[in-house]
Amino acid sequence: MEEYEIAIIGSGPAGISAAINAKVRKKSFILFGNKSLSEKVRCSHLIQNYPGFPDISGRELNEKLAEHMRRMNISVAEERINGIYDIGGYFMLLAGENEYKADTVIIATGARTVKELPGERELLGKGVSYCATCDGNFYKGKTIAVICDYKEAEEEVDFLAGLAEKVYFSPSYKTDFSRNNVVTLSSPVVSVKGEKHADAVSLKDGSEIAVDGVFFLRQSVSADVLLNGLEMDNGSIAVGRDMSTSVKGCFAAGDCTGAPYQIAKAIGEGNTALHSAIRYLAGKKAQTE
Amino acid sequence: MEEYEIAIIGSGPAGISAAINAKVRKKSFILFGNKSLSEKVRCSHLIQNYPGFPDISGRELNEKLAEHMRRMNISVAEERINGIYDIGGYFMLLAGENEYKADTVIIATGARTVKELPGERELLGKGVSYCATCDGNFYKGKTIAVICDYKEAEEEVDFLAGLAEKVYFSPSYKTDFSRNNVVTLSSPVVSVKGEKHADAVSLKDGSEIAVDGVFFLRQSVSADVLLNGLEMDNGSIAVGRDMSTSVKGCFAAGDCTGAPYQIAKAIGEGNTALHSAIRYLAGKKAQTE
Repeated sequence: MEEYEIAIIGSGPAGISAAINAKVRKKSFILFGNKSLSEKVRCSHLIQNYPGFPDISGRELNEKLAEHMRRMNISVAEERINGIYDIGGYFMLLAGENEYKADTVIIATGARTVKELPGERELLGKGVSYCATCDGNFYKGKTIAVICDYKEAEEEVDFLAGLAEKVYFSPSYKTDFSRNNVVTLSSPVVSVKGEKHADAVSLKDGSEIAVDGVFFLRQSVSADVLLNGLEMDNGSIAVGRDMSTSVKGCFAAGDCTGAPYQIAKAIGEGNTALHSAIRYLAGKKAQTE
Repeated sequence: MEEYEIAIIGSGPAGISAAINAKVRKKSFILFGNKSLSEKVRCSHLIQNYPGFPDISGRELNEKLAEHMRRMNISVAEERINGIYDIGGYFMLLAGENEYKADTVIIATGARTVKELPGERELLGKGVSYCATCDGNFYKGKTIAVICDYKEAEEEVDFLAGLAEKVYFSPSYKTDFSRNNVVTLSSPVVSVKGEKHADAVSLKDGSEIAVDGVFFLRQSVSADVLLNGLEMDNGSIAVGRDMSTSVKGCFAAGDCTGAPYQIAKAIGEGNTALHSAIRYLAGKKAQTE
């Protein structure tokens, strides 16, 4: 299993800033995200308030950040982190079938724009799952609903279709994905039903479909779903001035910590989070010596 | 008297970031500082961790910031703010003989590197002053000591020499400044003496000189000296996550709020402080309507 001092989750400005500082400080670290870095930055038309770059396009700034990373030999691990587990003293990060171990974690996953459906949070772990790899095997030969908000996740839908008897597929985008045992719903899923366990989904047209389980394949999930026990504040990760979270050894930076949703703020917080992580590592080392 | 919605004090990365955002948001503001912007940035040999500019010299980054300001038509008012007064609802800023009025203040004065002398803080306002213009007239025909740590302040020493009978001058740098009634001390002042009022200074060589008052002409003073009642935390301005200070309507950003002392952190905090100031202004406007 790969081991690092610092795991940084997210390749937007906050994660990049943390990674650059980790490199300067010669720490062992891994940066999870996308090689294309931040879609949000890339799609910004014009950025006027990142000091040093007057009137730069988002595409160009994203390229400048990529160039900075190339020059420092920082690469991005294209892994989707499905869960972070606090093992007391270190963290386990699950990415599909891969596991990573890290002494500290910096969450820089961006603002969460998706609204959870009624029943989703209440039945999480009780028939509702965010991770096909983790929980797919529980639904061999069963009937499931899969709510999916990004095309790249269709290989996970394919994986689930290979296990389940029947899949009701509810994509929030246009797609021609099809399999023999997959029914693409024309009316979107609006809630998950069930008392102690998910047993149905309701559609917008008013109908209900009985299922054994429900998978949400979301581009982003709430951080407290990623890391159990993480204290939130009005939908954002609650942090102190040093970017520490309620979980010891876990820091957060950027849009996931709340407004203002600004590149400069994210860059600053990534820097601070990394310095706090270094201080935490030093304290931990002093304890064990 | 000039009036603004926002007064920004300090032309380093935090102040610049705040000013750029104030301009984008079309607020009326004034930025106090130096046209050469930040000496600390300018004198940095190599900066590796301001994302977007791999391996840039401090001089070059300072120039990039200056260019950004020029492109946005932001100028720096070269005024030295000697005092900020919270008049309840707005602030008065004194700069020598000039006064400015502002609804909100963003303090971005950088890290304070000067150590106060014993007696300096205790006797402030009781014979100890930081402002020649404000307090010089109290010492007409009297004997004073002037402790000075930057050459540009010598015109204030000159002003004081024109009022006082005798001036004991203690510069912390090399200078050939001289006036008939000015004695330049060869041994530096190490403390201020006095019970209810300053009445002497002690020198490093052990001798004492009786005086009626003591002026400290410092390049930077502690922020709580600048604005009475400002809560400090271990030498830095105490701030919340939104960069608000203990004084309503006053925000702070950059090195003056504490570690890490980093350009990226200062830029991020300047951005956040400005957005908080805008929110404060909106709330104030809503109250008066």
